[in-house]
Amino acid sequence: MKHLAIFVVAALAAAPALGQSDELIALRGMGSFHVGGRVADVSGRPIREAPLPDGKTQKVDPNGSFLIEQMYVQYFLPAKKHGKYPMVMWHGGGLTGVTYETTPDGREGWANLFLRKGWDVYVSDAVERGRSGFAEPELFKGEPVFATLGFAWDSYRIGAPGSFQSAKGKRVAYPGTQFPVDDYENLVRQLVPRWLTTDDAILRAYVAEIDRVGPCVLVVHSQSGTIAYRAALARPDKVKAIVDVEGTLRGDASTAAALKHIPIIVIYGDNVEKSEFFATQHATNLKMVDTARSVGGSVEILELPAMGLKGNSHFLMMEKNNAQIADIIEQWLVKKELTNNSQ
Amino acid sequence: MKHLAIFVVAALAAAPALGQSDELIALRGMGSFHVGGRVADVSGRPIREAPLPDGKTQKVDPNGSFLIEQMYVQYFLPAKKHGKYPMVMWHGGGLTGVTYETTPDGREGWANLFLRKGWDVYVSDAVERGRSGFAEPELFKGEPVFATLGFAWDSYRIGAPGSFQSAKGKRVAYPGTQFPVDDYENLVRQLVPRWLTTDDAILRAYVAEIDRVGPCVLVVHSQSGTIAYRAALARPDKVKAIVDVEGTLRGDASTAAALKHIPIIVIYGDNVEKSEFFATQHATNLKMVDTARSVGGSVEILELPAMGLKGNSHFLMMEKNNAQIADIIEQWLVKKELTNNSQ
Repeated sequence: MKHLAIFVVAALAAAPALGQSDELIALRGMGSFHVGGRVADVSGRPIREAPLPDGKTQKVDPNGSFLIEQMYVQYFLPAKKHGKYPMVMWHGGGLTGVTYETTPDGREGWANLFLRKGWDVYVSDAVERGRSGFAEPELFKGEPVFATLGFAWDSYRIGAPGSFQSAKGKRVAYPGTQFPVDDYENLVRQLVPRWLTTDDAILRAYVAEIDRVGPCVLVVHSQSGTIAYRAALARPDKVKAIVDVEGTLRGDASTAAALKHIPIIVIYGDNVEKSEFFATQHATNLKMVDTARSVGGSVEILELPAMGLKGNSHFLMMEKNNAQIADIIEQWLVKKELTNNSQ
Repeated sequence: MKHLAIFVVAALAAAPALGQSDELIALRGMGSFHVGGRVADVSGRPIREAPLPDGKTQKVDPNGSFLIEQMYVQYFLPAKKHGKYPMVMWHGGGLTGVTYETTPDGREGWANLFLRKGWDVYVSDAVERGRSGFAEPELFKGEPVFATLGFAWDSYRIGAPGSFQSAKGKRVAYPGTQFPVDDYENLVRQLVPRWLTTDDAILRAYVAEIDRVGPCVLVVHSQSGTIAYRAALARPDKVKAIVDVEGTLRGDASTAAALKHIPIIVIYGDNVEKSEFFATQHATNLKMVDTARSVGGSVEILELPAMGLKGNSHFLMMEKNNAQIADIIEQWLVKKELTNNSQ
């Protein structure tokens, strides 16, 4: 332990509001890096005149060699390590690693909470999102799609479909919603454009991240649930567990057998049956529970409402009870012997 | 050399290997938020068929209300505060806040280094870059521009113009370059597309950040140097100093008078005279030194080569001697009485 200074974590006298912990965070390191990517060439495209603010234009040559499909990763390493492996967090479609940072209403997100529990935390922005950058139009198939102001509300079960612009002329959330609806716009500010054709590139970058970080626990959300399952198939020796927040496990008996040594849990919020998309996804995952069991593997589905936690949307890590859900995940990881002590 | 501040550069007692400190970082908080943005409406555009990976398409309706021009900010608050004000870091064009994180060769960047010195550090991604997201094509004027593999090398004085693909067929750096050239690709991975028409939106978001953070010291690079000067004019009571790494101060006697109470320093690396762009920029800034002095203000230009620091490119915060340059900035801030003690 020669690198660790002896540390006394002093409690601050005044507790900050809004559920912030008043204990210091002691880190043995923090930083960032990019993984993956490849050189791609563009040629034969005309030089264009790009408009400038003053009405003039600037010549832009879109040809040349570009480095594309790299992925940004930021990490925080706690002074006192409790998790047996690093925790690697992947976000959903149209979002970035900000998913796991401060909640829309200004409380600590899962990155902070698991860091405080003693996990090395790695948070990335998927290829073509956020700090990973995106590529010349002809290098990515298709165009980016943009989420409207009400898209997340209607699609991700903050309210019923169409409730963002309800007949009453104002947004209506599901009764007892756990989403901090007064700060809904702060979720919308987090949304970034996404392509619909980049899953394979995202997978390659995720695998590169796993190769760099080493054996790890994946905490994934939505779009990255499907990709995490593929990443585990690519690196079955390095993925030690998957905690999947409402993502789809797309597999069969063969994939389930290949991953039977990896504990997988899918966690669901409330009102799933009221969304055609999530009801279908849920049924797919239920089937994977049986398929996994039939080959001796373990896929669990955790329904928060069945545990008495009502009103959660698709964004478990951002909601009012996000710390409680983090504790539930922590307990599952302890049970799976993925921590260094029983806490 | 009337433009040079008098400086004593203290030698570091014991330089840790590769600039990594083995001391823990103790934080009283860390997190992120978005500032600014506005609702913009798109209507009348046709619904399009976006390609999916499997060859099918998905209907995408590009119309609706969107939240655009918001800006992402991440912050780290040290347990022991030394800076009188928060330090707000703004990056250059085609980059993100990653500029101030881990260097391309894996050492600590200025965010960590100033945090360790006891500054509250705020790092943002300018509007339309990184985690700030970008908008539907018709909401931003023009198109994004993309940097080729060799662009930063040739344009930002890692080597002479054209030296990335030299006659010898391989990249040639300036002799004694401080840039970690073996890891040049890690700088390229950080580059993100940028628009050329969004300075005003970036300024609005920066001002929103200042309003949220409160009185602060700005540490800015390249493109954000010009915008920082405008932000100071918009909030002359809140900007307490500007540390400008090779940005352009665009002002006149009137702006200089409005900002005469704000200490401003522009820091230059080496080989400036060999770049037409930077030579012109440098001359513009030299004029501002005189203009500021004529109205009783203070703009200083610090030439690192004149202090014996040779070989620095445009990326002072990423280079082998980045910790030494951070120390020089720290000493300037101490001299300007922007710290709580004399260290």
